[in-house]
Amino acid sequence: MADANLHLTGDRFRKAGYAAVDWIVQYLEELEELPVLSHVEPGDIRARLPAEAPRSGEPFDHVLRDLDDIVLPGITHWQSPNFFAYFPANASGPAILGDLIASGLGVQGMLWTTSPACTELETHVLDWLVQMLALPAQFRSNTRGGGVIQDTASSATLCALLAARERASDFATAHEGVTQRFTAYASSQAHSLVEKAVRIAGIGSDNLRFVEVDTQYAMVPAALDQMISADREAGAIPCFVCATTGTTSSTAIDPLRSIGEICRRHGVWLHVDAALAGNAAICPEYRWIHDGLELADSYCFNPHKWLLTNFDCDCFYVADRATLIRALSVLPEYLRNQPSESGAVFDYRDWHIPLGRRFRALKLWFVIRHYGIDGLQRHIRSHVALARDFASWIEQDPRFELAAPAPLNLVCFRHLGGNSVNERLMNRLNATGKLYLTHTKLGDHMVLRLAVGGTYTQAQHVARAQEMISRVADEVTAERGN
Amino acid sequence: MADANLHLTGDRFRKAGYAAVDWIVQYLEELEELPVLSHVEPGDIRARLPAEAPRSGEPFDHVLRDLDDIVLPGITHWQSPNFFAYFPANASGPAILGDLIASGLGVQGMLWTTSPACTELETHVLDWLVQMLALPAQFRSNTRGGGVIQDTASSATLCALLAARERASDFATAHEGVTQRFTAYASSQAHSLVEKAVRIAGIGSDNLRFVEVDTQYAMVPAALDQMISADREAGAIPCFVCATTGTTSSTAIDPLRSIGEICRRHGVWLHVDAALAGNAAICPEYRWIHDGLELADSYCFNPHKWLLTNFDCDCFYVADRATLIRALSVLPEYLRNQPSESGAVFDYRDWHIPLGRRFRALKLWFVIRHYGIDGLQRHIRSHVALARDFASWIEQDPRFELAAPAPLNLVCFRHLGGNSVNERLMNRLNATGKLYLTHTKLGDHMVLRLAVGGTYTQAQHVARAQEMISRVADEVTAERGN
Repeated sequence: MADANLHLTGDRFRKAGYAAVDWIVQYLEELEELPVLSHVEPGDIRARLPAEAPRSGEPFDHVLRDLDDIVLPGITHWQSPNFFAYFPANASGPAILGDLIASGLGVQGMLWTTSPACTELETHVLDWLVQMLALPAQFRSNTRGGGVIQDTASSATLCALLAARERASDFATAHEGVTQRFTAYASSQAHSLVEKAVRIAGIGSDNLRFVEVDTQYAMVPAALDQMISADREAGAIPCFVCATTGTTSSTAIDPLRSIGEICRRHGVWLHVDAALAGNAAICPEYRWIHDGLELADSYCFNPHKWLLTNFDCDCFYVADRATLIRALSVLPEYLRNQPSESGAVFDYRDWHIPLGRRFRALKLWFVIRHYGIDGLQRHIRSHVALARDFASWIEQDPRFELAAPAPLNLVCFRHLGGNSVNERLMNRLNATGKLYLTHTKLGDHMVLRLAVGGTYTQAQHVARAQEMISRVADEVTAERGN
Repeated sequence: MADANLHLTGDRFRKAGYAAVDWIVQYLEELEELPVLSHVEPGDIRARLPAEAPRSGEPFDHVLRDLDDIVLPGITHWQSPNFFAYFPANASGPAILGDLIASGLGVQGMLWTTSPACTELETHVLDWLVQMLALPAQFRSNTRGGGVIQDTASSATLCALLAARERASDFATAHEGVTQRFTAYASSQAHSLVEKAVRIAGIGSDNLRFVEVDTQYAMVPAALDQMISADREAGAIPCFVCATTGTTSSTAIDPLRSIGEICRRHGVWLHVDAALAGNAAICPEYRWIHDGLELADSYCFNPHKWLLTNFDCDCFYVADRATLIRALSVLPEYLRNQPSESGAVFDYRDWHIPLGRRFRALKLWFVIRHYGIDGLQRHIRSHVALARDFASWIEQDPRFELAAPAPLNLVCFRHLGGNSVNERLMNRLNATGKLYLTHTKLGDHMVLRLAVGGTYTQAQHVARAQEMISRVADEVTAERGN
């Protein structure tokens, strides 16, 4: 319908689109053989790109060619079945295509009225997930709560903190700014996103208390209780606790029930960050991780980590949406509209930082429809089983030890030869390109992390990783003359 | 390579992918005839979705069928050539496919090392754009500055404010929290995102000054100067000015040079929000909008609004990246890595709120390669020409008047019959489904906004809009007995 020479439409788009789909199919087929961690040097990729943008348009196949020649060598392959680093960012066929349709529709769902289906499908799918994960009823949209898709747990936690800060100041802070000393709490093992949020919100990292953990790296509730009391006595306003269900270092599970009871008693907002681990609750046998979650004011987990939905997709729930909305809503004239004024609809712009928003519910809907609850359970269970096999091997091998409990799909382990052996072991393994894993620190120990979460990771990949870790460990210790 | 029954891979993915591409081709072909604004009632979409998620997986074609039957009626068609509402969120063939490849690669570029190409292509394309738009050199990555892709101008402006707050407090606020009264400034016509950012950052909306505007709705620099001085005398710390290049209400252009000189003199951070209008600078004849931009500390514009790159894609630049990074960086052990420690690379996680990030540079790269500078200029010029034609008609028609200058692609106009005529005119037009436009308020007037920015909007669409506005205006006034 449009300027056919300028735009890529109709049959030209179809041809290019098929080529892009073919490219992905081929990429996924070759993926297993590609070096997982890119080994280019800083500046290598830029050096191969022209200094100036092209004056005239170029054919689509030239771009695809450069994708192979220039971009691919600089890719660390997060979708490789041999990727065991960080936490995964899993993509899947239906998620990729749901996101493709979202791009094609190109709707911007800031308000209900700017695409009712964008808002309603999101609310609906997030309600489905409450059932699917057996989350507490207060997070369903037919209560005073509800869910929304955020980009990441960082943003979700920031929004939770802002709602908490406003509730604690009776919404004065939004207008007057921070005029009192607020304090916030998280375990010493919580993600750095809590500190980032506390800084952004004007509370300050000095007012973030790191609560001690037990031998399993889970928060000690009594210590939290004492800290809150001490801060209140010192004149501060304790406003926010972030508990973690599955820490990034070691998937430690904070005891939500005890923490929740303390928060209730002190009137402090409890946010639960279950970015990775929350996904496991799709299987009834792992739902113990959420015991006590009904005491939380807000909660988030990331299907983009372990529920086959590609980045970005964080599901954020609140028990009292009015507080969140009041904390974040500013209404200019040019956004006023009849459905919003009626109060009968959700306008998700008021549930997060950005104004504009993609139709991200589509990819989640495509994933749930394609896999069904059964398929998703099967997938999660296979990963937990693989991690348990690996952990058993570590336990039985006298050269290694488990560095923390491995309740789900992350195994933290260390060679008994000490930090420098572990560091060299990791670097040597990653240099092979055959697998990629990363480290953390637990106590004084440098600890290696093997996270099983890739969409295509199967038994043979974990077995090969185990074989390589065993062999390279001997090489490294032999060189040291051990 | 994987569990073929569970996942959608290989030829099954290819077939589903082709079907999704075909779906988009067909959607775009039928788009012009679809009612632009969805007219479903609240709850209509949800009512057609099953109450519970499916137990077993379903075939892909069932999902596509429901996309047509359930989702499409609830879509407000942002890509329709008859969409003239808000500011556009334009998609294009190459952007859709660049984003598709990003989904397929599924990399998470939080650190340089987690995919060097994701970071370097982004830095490179953002440097290209500095040249393409003739932005000042301080925003290039080979100076102390640089650019990064954010989701929206809301997030970009928040990051600018946080950097400003930290600079003004010598980085004490990040640690101590807000302990002083900071003040921020924007014109009374600035976007609500400034107020949202000021609230989030703990500065408080009471400390946001709305600077008066002139008859063209642009900030009056002398008024800004007085306000800053008065606040300083009153003991506050003026820390942030947000100037707007192309306000959302009327594309008013704040005088950057005068504002910049005032900011320099007072040592206040100047951020320039050019979300829509900045894109016009790809054409030399519109670069006057950026006169004085070299005095800014930060700047953002949104290719997702008018440079054919689908949402989300905001390009955010700073003149001093060290300040931004110091404001936002928290480094936990599990993210430590050798390239980061070397200082030779950018880790974009420290340039924005979220930790994780998509490979959004791909879609921008695909767009620039496909269209070339020439094609992008041609596209922007065609929209400005169409808006000018429409504005000329308004000026010549005695029933209407222009409500503000129309320097680019937005025309603000009103029927002289008064606010209720304009409101009924808008609602009646939107109810036809043949076009969609929204309103704003300028002074006491309700004003209609016609924004020309759809990828596929051409002369005949604007001509038809004009014809309908003319006809429906007569209907509305006839009913009133005028």
